[in-house]
Formats: sequence, C-alpha cells, structure tokens
Amino acid sequence: MRVMILGADGYLGWPTSMYLNAQGHDILAVDGLNKRLWEAEVGVQPLLPLPTFQERVKTWYDISPSDFGRAPKVVGKVCDVATNPSYFDKLVKEFEPDAIIHYAEQPSAPYSHISARTCVDTQRNNVVSTLNLIFSVLRHVPDCHIIKLGTMGEYGTPNIDIEEGWLDVIHKGREDRILYPKRPGSWYHLSKVHDSHNLEFSCRAMGLRVTDLNQGVVYGMHTDETWLSSGLCTSFHYDAIFGTVINRFLAQAAVGMPLSVYGSGGQTRGFLNITDTLKCVELALENPSESGEFRVFNQFTEQFSIRELAERISGLIGAEIRSVPNPRVEQEDHYYSAVHTALPDLGLLPTLLGDDTLEKMYATVHKNRDRIDQSVLLPDVKWKQ
Amino acid sequence: MRVMILGADGYLGWPTSMYLNAQGHDILAVDGLNKRLWEAEVGVQPLLPLPTFQERVKTWYDISPSDFGRAPKVVGKVCDVATNPSYFDKLVKEFEPDAIIHYAEQPSAPYSHISARTCVDTQRNNVVSTLNLIFSVLRHVPDCHIIKLGTMGEYGTPNIDIEEGWLDVIHKGREDRILYPKRPGSWYHLSKVHDSHNLEFSCRAMGLRVTDLNQGVVYGMHTDETWLSSGLCTSFHYDAIFGTVINRFLAQAAVGMPLSVYGSGGQTRGFLNITDTLKCVELALENPSESGEFRVFNQFTEQFSIRELAERISGLIGAEIRSVPNPRVEQEDHYYSAVHTALPDLGLLPTLLGDDTLEKMYATVHKNRDRIDQSVLLPDVKWKQ
Repeated sequence: MRVMILGADGYLGWPTSMYLNAQGHDILAVDGLNKRLWEAEVGVQPLLPLPTFQERVKTWYDISPSDFGRAPKVVGKVCDVATNPSYFDKLVKEFEPDAIIHYAEQPSAPYSHISARTCVDTQRNNVVSTLNLIFSVLRHVPDCHIIKLGTMGEYGTPNIDIEEGWLDVIHKGREDRILYPKRPGSWYHLSKVHDSHNLEFSCRAMGLRVTDLNQGVVYGMHTDETWLSSGLCTSFHYDAIFGTVINRFLAQAAVGMPLSVYGSGGQTRGFLNITDTLKCVELALENPSESGEFRVFNQFTEQFSIRELAERISGLIGAEIRSVPNPRVEQEDHYYSAVHTALPDLGLLPTLLGDDTLEKMYATVHKNRDRIDQSVLLPDVKWKQ
Repeated sequence: MRVMILGADGYLGWPTSMYLNAQGHDILAVDGLNKRLWEAEVGVQPLLPLPTFQERVKTWYDISPSDFGRAPKVVGKVCDVATNPSYFDKLVKEFEPDAIIHYAEQPSAPYSHISARTCVDTQRNNVVSTLNLIFSVLRHVPDCHIIKLGTMGEYGTPNIDIEEGWLDVIHKGREDRILYPKRPGSWYHLSKVHDSHNLEFSCRAMGLRVTDLNQGVVYGMHTDETWLSSGLCTSFHYDAIFGTVINRFLAQAAVGMPLSVYGSGGQTRGFLNITDTLKCVELALENPSESGEFRVFNQFTEQFSIRELAERISGLIGAEIRSVPNPRVEQEDHYYSAVHTALPDLGLLPTLLGDDTLEKMYATVHKNRDRIDQSVLLPDVKWKQ
C-alpha cells in the first residue's frame, strides 16, 4: 500500500515508518520538525542523540535488507501540515496514498499548560493539521483511510465503563448510539477531543473513512528496526514535559533520585509496548473502516496505577518512592474500566510489561545516565497557577 | 455590574450592549469588526444600512435617556479577541468586569463550508477567541462570570431527548453524570462544541464560572432600544450565508420569489425572539453560576419545522413554497425534543412567534425590498462538493 505518515520524525512516527516499509509498504514520511523546536524551547533532549530526520531516512535506505529495501521506499519530506496546507496538498495529490497515519500533533499535556501561548499553539496546531488533512483527502483521495492517533486520556476518568468511542444509551424510554462523552484533563487532550469531533463529522457528512486510535501510554525504546543501527533509534524522553511516567521513573532510578509519584498515585491508565503500537496501526491499516464510518479503537494492553508502576520499578531496581504535590488537576482515586477488545479481535497479541522489558530499558538508561539532566525530572508546570 | 460584551457590533451583541446599559450596567463593548469583513468577502449586506460601530456607540450615548445615560456608559473598543490577545488582556485588566458576554465568533454554518480556508478560519477564530478569554479571566478576574453563546445546533438531532448540557446515565450497572454528547452538522457548529469542551475544563480544573447558552435560531429586528433611532438598528441578514430561515423567507416573499425550503423541510429547530435573547442573557447575568460550575441552558422558547414556518409565512403573506435540493447534510425527518426549562425557572416569560410579529417584520422587509439582492437568496454553498 501507499502509506503517508504524518509526524514521521517522532517517537512513534519514525519506528512506524520503518516497520511498515519493512512489511512492504511504500512510505511517504512527512514531518514539520516542530517537535525538535518545542524540545529546544523548553530545554530538553532525548536520552540518546537523535540523528536529523534526513539522516534517519538515509540510514534506513542504506541499511534496510535488500528484500524490502528496493521497490518500496521511505521518502522523507519536511512539511508542516498545520501551517503549509498548500505544500501538504501537493504531497497528497502526487503520492495518492491508500492510507494516512496521522501522528503530527503537539503530544504533551504539560507543554500545553506552560502558558496561554502554548495552550493556543497546541490546540491550533493539532486542530488545524487535522482539518488540513481532511480537506486534502476530500480533494484528492476521498477513499483514503485516515488512521488518527488519539489518546485514552480523551475520555478522562468517568464513573462508568469506557467503551470504544460509542455508547448505546436508553434515555426516557428512547434509544440512541451516541459518541462516548469525553472529559479530558488537559488542553492537549482537549485538542484531540476536538479532532475526534471534526473527524466524526467528516465521515458522517462527507463519507470519509477514519479509524481513531485512542492510545494508552506507550513505553519502550526499541522495535525490530531500531535495533539495526544507532542511527535508527527513536527518541526517549525522560523529562517532566515530554517524558511519560515509566521513562521518568527509570531515569530517576538511574541517577539515584526517588521515583516521584504525583499525589497519591492512584491515577490508573492504560499502557502498551511500542511494538504493539506498530502492530495496532498495521491491523488498522489492513482492516480499513468503511467509507463514511468513524471507527474508534481503544489501543492499550493492560492498566496500572502510577503507584503500582513505581512499586514495580522500585522492587526491581531498589529506588525510593516519594510523593510530590500533583501539578495536574486530576482524580487520584477513581473507577477505571475501559473496553479494549477491538484490536485483539483483529489479531493483536499483546506484549505485556515484563520485568525483562523494564530491566532492558533500565540497562540502556543506566548506561547513558551521564546524559540525564536532573533538573528536568521534576514537574514545574502546574495546571493551577 | 461591569459587563464586557465581546462581539458587540453584531446582530445580538449591539442590542445586548444597549439593553444592559439601559438596565443600569456599565458596558465595555468590544468587537474586532471581522463580521463586516466576512460580509464584504461574500458580497452581502444587511437589509438596512448599518452605521459604523463607532457611530452606533456615539448615537447611543447622545440619545439614551438621562436617567441611565449618565453614570453607566457604553464604551466601545475595537479589539480582535482571537488575534490580539495582549490588547484584549489589557482591556480585561483595566475594566475588571463582573461578567463577560461572549458573542465574538464567526456565526455562520454556510460560511464555514465555503472552502478549507473558511473552515479553518472559523474554527481557529472561535476556539482561539474563547481560549484567550479564558486566560485573561484566569489572570485578572478569576471570579468573573463568563456567559458564552453556544447554539442548540451543537447537539445535532439525537434520537433521545436533549437535556441541558448534562446527561445522567446508568451503564452496566454504574451511574455517572456525563456531558451531553454532541454531533453537530457543520464546521461552525463544531467550533462551538470545541469551545464548550474547553470551557467545561476551565471550570473543572481552574475554578472558572461559566454559563453556556445553547441558543436556538433568533428572529426579530427590534428591541426597545433599536426603536429609538435608525442609527441604533441592528443588522438584518436575509442572504443564504448569514441570514436565518425566517429572514430569508420574508425577503423572498417581499420580492415575489417562492420560499425555498431545503429538502423536505422536516428539519425541526428551536426558535426565540431577539427580545428573549436579551432577557435570557440578563437572567444568566443576574443569577451567575457557581465558581467551578459549567452550567448549560437551552435557550429557545418554541420549536418549528422549516416546512411549518414556510406554511405559516405563506398563509400570512401568500407566497409560494418550493423545495430546493438541500445544500447541507442533515436529517430531514427526525425526532426532536429538547428540555428548555432552566431559563423559564429563572423567570423567562417567552415572547412566542405571533402573526403580528411576522407581519411587522414583513412590513419593514417589504418597505425596503428595493435593497434586497435577489442573487444571494438561494444557497450556493454545498456541504458535499
């Protein structure tokens, strides 16, 4: 298939580009490189030095096994989908993708809470990039399957079971299938809720086909392809802005700091391994939604509370656990039960979080501990100023 | 009270500014004048010549009865809330409003469907203006009551009763009060859904107080204040982009065209008189929501199908009715039952759509029929290109 990947320079976009190319798909890898700007702006770097986007694409071209490295290619293009709709439109028109995988969004809740400006920039970037995508698909490839990365955080923590995007309700004796209502916990998560509403409308009113993947927290540093060369590694953020909780805990353990749990740590979230992300995206690609269908999958494999994760890592490595005041506004003791059967029904075999995975990740983090900037491990962005 | 009105040069913003001033409130009337630009862009004008924003404010100052024209004032400021957040912030800081009434949004569904650019501009303008408002309130007047104009169109046409913003559900044996799920029918309506989600979060996470008024279709040309002088009139749009259905039908009747019903005309919507809009906003102002509360009122007084309205006007004036292909994607035969008891509970006495109202409106339209541009009465913006 001809697959366009937006946000192809990112933590997931880059491994997805290599993986789907290795499966024999032609890849147009597109990125506006904003993530590198946002990192520079807040003064953080990934743990391992990252090659440029152009270097990665070249390294992959040189190194990828000849049986899949010849005919199908990864072509990289620098294009900001939000601010350069005309160039993006040209790329869509010329490449004629069968599917577009859309990761091209500002991905951090804390970043969106730094200031009014970062909130507005986050919502503008994410909402406008998705709208520009919708219009280019309508114009040139209306049958193209849009695979959009959303997040489980869009749902928030309702007191009822979380379904996969839709909810069957009976109200005052009448029935309807309604969009599952969302009450997320950050400006960033809200931007994804807006995207989902816009995408659902584009299916209903214009006949597009969309799969919205509401993903849990992804962990892991490696995929089959990143192992091939250090020049193919993906980003590993451990800081309090762009790093997710497992990464942050491992970095704290590596430099001898206590694992900082926000508040009581009773916050429960869905998690999945980066290799499962690639597999889920591939399953969506191979099983497209119908024309006019807005399909939602909840994409995670298991759930943990933050305290459970801290205890697990502490038990394995021996680090201390320390509660810090929660910088976010969120429930710390809540019901959490989310349906996530659609992807296993399509064939997903979950890679659960084993001690071996944590130990391998920790070994890499510990080996590179001199590169850890301890000043960015604790949160300094507060939801309430 | 000190009341800031955003979008004060608009169809509702201007009469609201005069009315609330007449009730003794100090008014800071703010508008970026974009609506005048959008009208020029699509080549339409209101039926009656509109004075400039600055002229209106001066006329009101000169004419308003001395008992309320002295101490409390209407001060007008030209400021685009979406693109000039620093000047807007300065206005909020200096005026210290007790309440802010937010009408400052691109208000037309057809406009948002002209092109990719008008869709993006609509969502960007509306979402960013509301975010900038939220941040200035947080910074300077966190106790200020935000009264936001939403629309009944946000809900779409679900097969269950529409509640006022929130829905009590029992699902798999567990209970929750969830945001009423929304599936609107245009990019414009979606922008208001995004606003509502952002505002709900600002209440829940930052303790703001918000009333979201989901308004029906407003009709009427006059309020107690607009009658005082032709220089105080409000805009009356009859075109297919900015004009609502009653206005359009009256203009068509006045020039001897058939009343153009979109599709079967079974589309049912809530309606209210412009004088009731002013009263509803005043009731919200006098009865603010609690700190941290996201309160939603459904603001309409009666409901009609489009065909019922056409038949009513046809019966009164004698015009022919003609169905035209529906340019929108919407259900033309659907269930529609929306709760709207909160505002009557606060004291709203509805002004229902009487024949006298229609006849008075028609008399003005007919008298000015030479100013009607017949080329803008039929829809040329289609949801599906």
